[in-house]
Amino acid sequence: MVFESHQPSDAPGWVARVQLPEPSLQDNTADVDRLGDALRKEFGLKALDVDLSLGRGLPSLLRENHFAVRCLVCRDRHRGVLIHAGPDHARTVLAGLAIDLGTTRVVMRLMDLDRGKVLAETAFDNPQLTIGPDVLARIHYTDRPEGLAELNRLIIDGVNRHLERLCESCGLNTAHVHLIAVAGNTAMSHLFAGLPARWIIREPYIPAANRFNLIPAAQLGLAAGPLAQVMIFPNVGSYFGGDLIAGILYSGLHTDSQTAILVDVGTNAEVVLGNKEWLMACAGAAGPALEGGMSRIGTTAAPGVIDRVRIDPRSGEFHLHTIDDQPPVGICGSGVIDLAAQLFGAGMIDIRGRFQPAQCGSRLQMHDGLASLTLVSGDRSGNGRDLCISQVDMDSLVRSKAAMYTILETITGTMGIALEDLEIFYVAGTFGSLIDPKSAITIGMIPDLPLDRFRPLGNSSLGGATLALTRRSLPEEAERLRESITYLELNVNQDFMNRFSAAKFIPHTDATRFPSVKMGAS
Amino acid sequence: MVFESHQPSDAPGWVARVQLPEPSLQDNTADVDRLGDALRKEFGLKALDVDLSLGRGLPSLLRENHFAVRCLVCRDRHRGVLIHAGPDHARTVLAGLAIDLGTTRVVMRLMDLDRGKVLAETAFDNPQLTIGPDVLARIHYTDRPEGLAELNRLIIDGVNRHLERLCESCGLNTAHVHLIAVAGNTAMSHLFAGLPARWIIREPYIPAANRFNLIPAAQLGLAAGPLAQVMIFPNVGSYFGGDLIAGILYSGLHTDSQTAILVDVGTNAEVVLGNKEWLMACAGAAGPALEGGMSRIGTTAAPGVIDRVRIDPRSGEFHLHTIDDQPPVGICGSGVIDLAAQLFGAGMIDIRGRFQPAQCGSRLQMHDGLASLTLVSGDRSGNGRDLCISQVDMDSLVRSKAAMYTILETITGTMGIALEDLEIFYVAGTFGSLIDPKSAITIGMIPDLPLDRFRPLGNSSLGGATLALTRRSLPEEAERLRESITYLELNVNQDFMNRFSAAKFIPHTDATRFPSVKMGAS
Repeated sequence: MVFESHQPSDAPGWVARVQLPEPSLQDNTADVDRLGDALRKEFGLKALDVDLSLGRGLPSLLRENHFAVRCLVCRDRHRGVLIHAGPDHARTVLAGLAIDLGTTRVVMRLMDLDRGKVLAETAFDNPQLTIGPDVLARIHYTDRPEGLAELNRLIIDGVNRHLERLCESCGLNTAHVHLIAVAGNTAMSHLFAGLPARWIIREPYIPAANRFNLIPAAQLGLAAGPLAQVMIFPNVGSYFGGDLIAGILYSGLHTDSQTAILVDVGTNAEVVLGNKEWLMACAGAAGPALEGGMSRIGTTAAPGVIDRVRIDPRSGEFHLHTIDDQPPVGICGSGVIDLAAQLFGAGMIDIRGRFQPAQCGSRLQMHDGLASLTLVSGDRSGNGRDLCISQVDMDSLVRSKAAMYTILETITGTMGIALEDLEIFYVAGTFGSLIDPKSAITIGMIPDLPLDRFRPLGNSSLGGATLALTRRSLPEEAERLRESITYLELNVNQDFMNRFSAAKFIPHTDATRFPSVKMGAS
Repeated sequence: MVFESHQPSDAPGWVARVQLPEPSLQDNTADVDRLGDALRKEFGLKALDVDLSLGRGLPSLLRENHFAVRCLVCRDRHRGVLIHAGPDHARTVLAGLAIDLGTTRVVMRLMDLDRGKVLAETAFDNPQLTIGPDVLARIHYTDRPEGLAELNRLIIDGVNRHLERLCESCGLNTAHVHLIAVAGNTAMSHLFAGLPARWIIREPYIPAANRFNLIPAAQLGLAAGPLAQVMIFPNVGSYFGGDLIAGILYSGLHTDSQTAILVDVGTNAEVVLGNKEWLMACAGAAGPALEGGMSRIGTTAAPGVIDRVRIDPRSGEFHLHTIDDQPPVGICGSGVIDLAAQLFGAGMIDIRGRFQPAQCGSRLQMHDGLASLTLVSGDRSGNGRDLCISQVDMDSLVRSKAAMYTILETITGTMGIALEDLEIFYVAGTFGSLIDPKSAITIGMIPDLPLDRFRPLGNSSLGGATLALTRRSLPEEAERLRESITYLELNVNQDFMNRFSAAKFIPHTDATRFPSVKMGAS
């Protein structure tokens, strides 16, 4: 599996040095217009806004620097904005901030906009978790008086707090930050902008906004340079947000002639299928099993979390790998998938995902009438508790993987494409980096493709947000992309249910679809 | 002479009522995008900015009003801005302010933007007069520390103070004002926006800005609605400002197939010649004689100021009319022109403008070796002082009128148009309203055209600024106009000097050019 950098470093960015022709009696264009004309040309813009505060300083700046200046420009769909103008030779860092605005976790990357280099990164829990764990809980909270304002303040304060530290860590301060790019799902983007979110979850599911113009950072209460601007990735709709647009842009799927699929797995599975000619997207509930939602011991990736599992088929011995090799405290999505694949391989679960007492041996116990498999006993775990997987957890996993597979089958089927014809299979997120595609194939969650077609994208939302800071064509690309996506409404009709039922087996009722999977106890 | 209203009342303005299609599962466009789409269509815009504060209120506003809203939009060259959105049936006044930003006098008109009606008007001396009487003095003052800020504060505070009263006078407050249109010369526009003006008067005469985007009123410190925007008319260059662009737009000269000329007389005479196909402009020093600059008794139009003069050719009796019929205190430009024409008709001055002692009689006296004609003796004047015109004043008037005529001759000559072929002759300003064209022809200041070709425009800058508040095509028109004007640099070469010398006679060395003028004592 190759990790590709999807960010061409030679794409022109938002910083440009321009040498203006000096004015004369024959060419007495005004200063602002002179700079504006040059920058419009340089950036291919129809319109460029020069804030009055910049215009006021421009005549001196130009004359003191022989009309050679370094400028930071940004644009939204239609309009360019001059954010900074300074001496051509200045070495002051012009910084930008990329934000992956996750419901659970927020990741921020500080960039040097002039050099196109990463300066520092940080991640923190979304402070809105104190209000509610998921989108739904938070949107309901906005119905309270000041609920929206409170949620908005939490995330803005959180970003400010961590941005300050991030800046300090590289000898800068927040006034050096001139551009902020935010990739989040529709709800998170709304709460970030302080936009009412209640209609997102109510039929007919209307966001307040899908497309955002540049917003002054000051208006959002973000601590940054005086003219800093914020780009928020556009949403396709209530259930297809800017994080995915960012992810697609990062993958490059929309520019490739080969047909590829991109899967972002969370509580919702979001899937994009297409190539440079067409794009289709859908989203569906894949169940919480894949994102740390397993009862009691499920968790997201963190030190001490089991991310890889091997079971010796002869001895039945469990080899558990934990992140950072810490004593085990839980299991994440990729660990669960590995576990299920290994249990299946060892015959410890059957094709329905049912624990097989004979094969499981003493690890399998009954708690309150529920079969439960102990992975780690309390005396060897990191928190003194037994780490167990119950039959309920396993059933939940099987439903999740079946939903995932059914969604993939449906979207490809809609376009008349066979799953095995997918040339590239992108898997986004930490999940995508940690998952062992072989295990995911074994349990029938993803199609049985040659392993070299699977491409983990890493944090593609952050990657897309970083591109927004460094590639001047991005706002147009994002808008074009947004408009070209056909959103497939997943009708949970009889057809879908039939496919889902067939997928609720390991790997599938139709085992011929998974020729690489060695059938275990079946 | 007919005073025409140059403002078609049926042109669509900035207020629009829109009924949006209600969202459904089949049409789940986001609220901001839904309104934006409708308004872009309505206003023919590519881009529309919706401020976050409006976006935040939009979902409720739309749903509480069955998706029918009244909106106030404005635009600059490229970009539309939503300034206000409220219930369709709301009766709150949406007010706009038109400002004629004169160097000497500021005139403001409050408009109801929805109904397109004038609410109130006021005028006041430009508070920057305390710093300096003219553009030059004020620009030099900006070289002092805080000089620019002080000048800026004076005019902004002045506008705020008078706007507050203006609003009160019609039961409104400044928060009702959402749009402000400003027409001023290049220097005044700069001082209003707080832009450095020092390069305007230094070779090669470069303004900081010629074209202005919409500026938030708040950024200029103007007391108005929270999202109020300011439109500043664009300048052609340092010596051709937005006041003239406004004037041309108001006259309609740029849309007419007939070739017309527009003259704005002040310390500088500004002249525009053209039709809907082409426009040429020039400006030149016409001397202060025409704008209240005569020594001692010259003044601008005000109560007690002599604005019309008749001399009985037989008795030599002077009939002086004063504004508001107050006791005389001075004489304004139109009065001086009348006076000179009447003196010439009565033979009291010769073709060089020299007082003729025999005809002037006892009114003519020598003061310090200078011939001086008493118009009103101190016992009959409004201020106890004799009102006199000296030979120096008369010489100054002759030079001014000669300069004016030479400018007109030069600009028409450049285009190969004979002066007598001008179909319409617009005269802007108070001067234009008060002047008797017959007198101006008599002294040879303007060409000897049939009187019905002269059109006083009144305050054309204010008229243009008003149009900006009421006609949505205006920003585009202004920009197109600005770009289509060819600016004729008046080279004071031998040719010009020859023409000027020939024009320094009353009415002209070549009397055949003025067939309507009955030659007096010559």
